[in-house]
Amino acid sequence: MPDLILMKAEDVAENEVTIDGAEKVTIRWLISKDDGAPNFSMRMFDISRGGHSPLHSHSWEHEVYIIEGEGMLIFEGEKNTFSSGDFIFVPGGKKHSFINTGEGRMRFLCLVPND
Amino acid sequence: MPDLILMKAEDVAENEVTIDGAEKVTIRWLISKDDGAPNFSMRMFDISRGGHSPLHSHSWEHEVYIIEGEGMLIFEGEKNTFSSGDFIFVPGGKKHSFINTGEGRMRFLCLVPND
Repeated sequence: MPDLILMKAEDVAENEVTIDGAEKVTIRWLISKDDGAPNFSMRMFDISRGGHSPLHSHSWEHEVYIIEGEGMLIFEGEKNTFSSGDFIFVPGGKKHSFINTGEGRMRFLCLVPND
Repeated sequence: MPDLILMKAEDVAENEVTIDGAEKVTIRWLISKDDGAPNFSMRMFDISRGGHSPLHSHSWEHEVYIIEGEGMLIFEGEKNTFSSGDFIFVPGGKKHSFINTGEGRMRFLCLVPND
């Protein structure tokens, strides 16, 4: 039986995203299957100034909330700007990339189904 | 086929939570099944000073991120303080209530499985 988890997101281990096309991106797995989460996982991404996530697609969806900073989402070739306080639903099967276009750090939550 | 959604959370309709035991709580459904989200839903809750969510339990889990403010989580009779930048996993079947213990608004994301 999973137990309560309550902690600062910044206290979770931060790892560089090393997959092709990612630049200056780190990930923290806040809540995942390993914690007993049965359905979906919460990750926190930081993208430094000038960085971006890979332009890619996959079958699963993203549910995103922008905590800090500003950026541009490339979605199926179209450019969409966003900033802190925005939320984003990226359906599965669509090509997307998050780009930090601001002067400082861009931080967001990105939740995905477990399987 | 669901499409991209990108908007300010504050532009989503805000509704008072009227269920028994809720005080000074509003909900915004940011992303849900109605938007084509296949697996889980993102809601944003605001609890005003002095307010709280009901002390209740249900079979499904919560994945929570505290955006603003400070509060106390009652979890199975134990008190746990939290503040902005914390994340919380509330497993299914456990009695819980979120209480705003700060001077201002407490705002958090709370994600749940669709079914």
